Amino acid sequence: MSSTWTLAKRAHKMNPSVIREILKVTEKPGIISFAGGLPSPKTFPVEAFAAACETVLRTDGRAALQYAASEGYRPLCEWVAASMPWDVSADQVLITTGSQQGLDLVAKVLIDEGSTVLVETPTYLGALQAFTPMEPNIVSVDSDAEGVDVDDLASKAKGARFLYVLPNFQNPTGRSMSEARRQALVERAAAIGLPLVEDNPYGDLWFDQPPPKPLTARNPEGCIYLGSFSKVLAPGLRLGYVIAPKAIMPKLLQAKQAADLHSPSFNQRMVSEVLKDGFIDRHVPTIRALYKSQCHAMLEALQKDMAGLDVVWNTPDGGMFLWVRLPEGMNAVELLPKAVDKGVAFVPGAAFYADHADPRTLRLSFVTASVEQIHIGIAALAQAIREAVKG
Amino acid sequence: MSSTWTLAKRAHKMNPSVIREILKVTEKPGIISFAGGLPSPKTFPVEAFAAACETVLRTDGRAALQYAASEGYRPLCEWVAASMPWDVSADQVLITTGSQQGLDLVAKVLIDEGSTVLVETPTYLGALQAFTPMEPNIVSVDSDAEGVDVDDLASKAKGARFLYVLPNFQNPTGRSMSEARRQALVERAAAIGLPLVEDNPYGDLWFDQPPPKPLTARNPEGCIYLGSFSKVLAPGLRLGYVIAPKAIMPKLLQAKQAADLHSPSFNQRMVSEVLKDGFIDRHVPTIRALYKSQCHAMLEALQKDMAGLDVVWNTPDGGMFLWVRLPEGMNAVELLPKAVDKGVAFVPGAAFYADHADPRTLRLSFVTASVEQIHIGIAALAQAIREAVKG
Repeated sequence: MSSTWTLAKRAHKMNPSVIREILKVTEKPGIISFAGGLPSPKTFPVEAFAAACETVLRTDGRAALQYAASEGYRPLCEWVAASMPWDVSADQVLITTGSQQGLDLVAKVLIDEGSTVLVETPTYLGALQAFTPMEPNIVSVDSDAEGVDVDDLASKAKGARFLYVLPNFQNPTGRSMSEARRQALVERAAAIGLPLVEDNPYGDLWFDQPPPKPLTARNPEGCIYLGSFSKVLAPGLRLGYVIAPKAIMPKLLQAKQAADLHSPSFNQRMVSEVLKDGFIDRHVPTIRALYKSQCHAMLEALQKDMAGLDVVWNTPDGGMFLWVRLPEGMNAVELLPKAVDKGVAFVPGAAFYADHADPRTLRLSFVTASVEQIHIGIAALAQAIREAVKG
Repeated sequence: MSSTWTLAKRAHKMNPSVIREILKVTEKPGIISFAGGLPSPKTFPVEAFAAACETVLRTDGRAALQYAASEGYRPLCEWVAASMPWDVSADQVLITTGSQQGLDLVAKVLIDEGSTVLVETPTYLGALQAFTPMEPNIVSVDSDAEGVDVDDLASKAKGARFLYVLPNFQNPTGRSMSEARRQALVERAAAIGLPLVEDNPYGDLWFDQPPPKPLTARNPEGCIYLGSFSKVLAPGLRLGYVIAPKAIMPKLLQAKQAADLHSPSFNQRMVSEVLKDGFIDRHVPTIRALYKSQCHAMLEALQKDMAGLDVVWNTPDGGMFLWVRLPEGMNAVELLPKAVDKGVAFVPGAAFYADHADPRTLRLSFVTASVEQIHIGIAALAQAIREAVKG
């Protein structure tokens, strides 16, 4: 028997995640991977989750296993609202299936075919993937070590639906926006009427001091804010949240209902149980300390092993990533298989550009590998670069 | 500060779920609700889940809490593939965040603005909600007590992307397709090249004998099959699955990555652990027995209380719902507040029609209320109808 499948136009624009394809290659035993954006599993509070599971199933099991409100478990919405550094009502919080789903809902509600959507240069690959099915025209805004250039933004903003921006320890670069840049961005965006979609999965992972306050705190009616429990608790529960102005929330909620009815009620209750009594304030400092020491180890190794190679990199103040630029004429996509031959993997930076990719860039995660692996892996990467330079 | 939010065109077509709005009204204490599509929480295997949580976190906790493959947890994909009554490879199984997400992914991959999508009369409201954001032209196919009329289908199928069909104990009507109708539908659809999207959340909930084999088993290359753990285990874990031909799976997978990266790895491992050793074969018969007895109670109560009222209803062979038609001239939407005043709630049937709604219809769930509540609630509903007839 036959049948005729006709794909939607948007399906032809979808692509497999370059990162997930690379991860498949680099999951071979023996490869030291700086490629993934995976939090260190050492930081997962397994014991706290086990206790929370037991409590939730014993005290509230049948409700935890039943269908639930699309908005999210109310105590969790209240916790999120109370944890923000500006005045947020629990009614403005929508619990999502990871913050990736927040991007999908934002795309559905705000992007028409051909709409201009502005992003940083470079930007989070998962956002590009979430926006693409709604067929926008994605435009990169010039960016420097502090984030988007507000003059370039203003020159490209006419008719744009929003700017998507990751101000804290950005994925992929690890860079953060300064206080002055944040204020300038928010004021300029408001002046030209441009909404902001602020993504903040890494903001709590600072090393020495917390980052300046969020963009949304400065203009709550002009911003949608996305947060996540993936980096401060664990990603495998798939819980994030969206905080949106009252004008937008009903449509995000309807999109959420249509997408998956609601995020797992069991997981929401588990996380809500774990968050009781200030757990996060005791737990997150242990993640910060670990990631800071691993970042330090990677910076030391780069300093030592890349000497004389004309390789440059930044020094993040938090998060999970740092950003490397190879010598002139070198291409990170071409370097990758040579590095994998030496036993080390990374993600070529090209994947993170909406347009005009810089082929010399690459992203390194410093959180999943151990300090010992970092030393071995960076030495191997330097050797691969050295051979490629000679090549 | 100001900002200018511009909603996508599709956002104006989205609506709040009528059912979820009704559920909010009917959640008042003292209301007996036949409105929700909620499985009976009595059937949730809380103890088995508690044991599985403990095992998963103890033996495999860090992997269960980490990011994971978009395809799903491989042993769960394998279990799903092996449980189907036709030859399915685990590579054709995609684990979704509830089967509602399967509908969202199908819509993204197969529906363009203006595409014709065919549905039964009436059909599942959640499917209408999932398809609507992709802006199809949804067309109802005439249907009788056995499901879609294949001649009417053929007359409307030109250029249609697919027919969405729920062959077993359909939501909302509770009706099932006979063996002959299934075979006729599959053969006619194949002859005209029309793909089928088969949704089967209720197929395991039969009372006396299993339903005929799925449509997909008869033409796997011409069908996408959606399944769910919500009705045989518990909905609060949000786990379902899609089985798709190899031609379609890569695009569904890319849409899945963009939508929420993957479904919760912890939940997938929990369910996989619970399913070991044939648990489902011991557990599901207890659900069938409970729902059969509650369906029987509701049919008895209808027989007794609706006598002389010119109300008609069907007799389902399984599932969670039955379908009622009020006397000529009566409107279920207008009846609802009067019924709620008497302490009983239902869902007016109009919500389930893509077009040409029959205002006299309503859906009753027999699974959430107890037998005692069923007797009280049906008597109250009959009284509301009696007064409306007089009124």
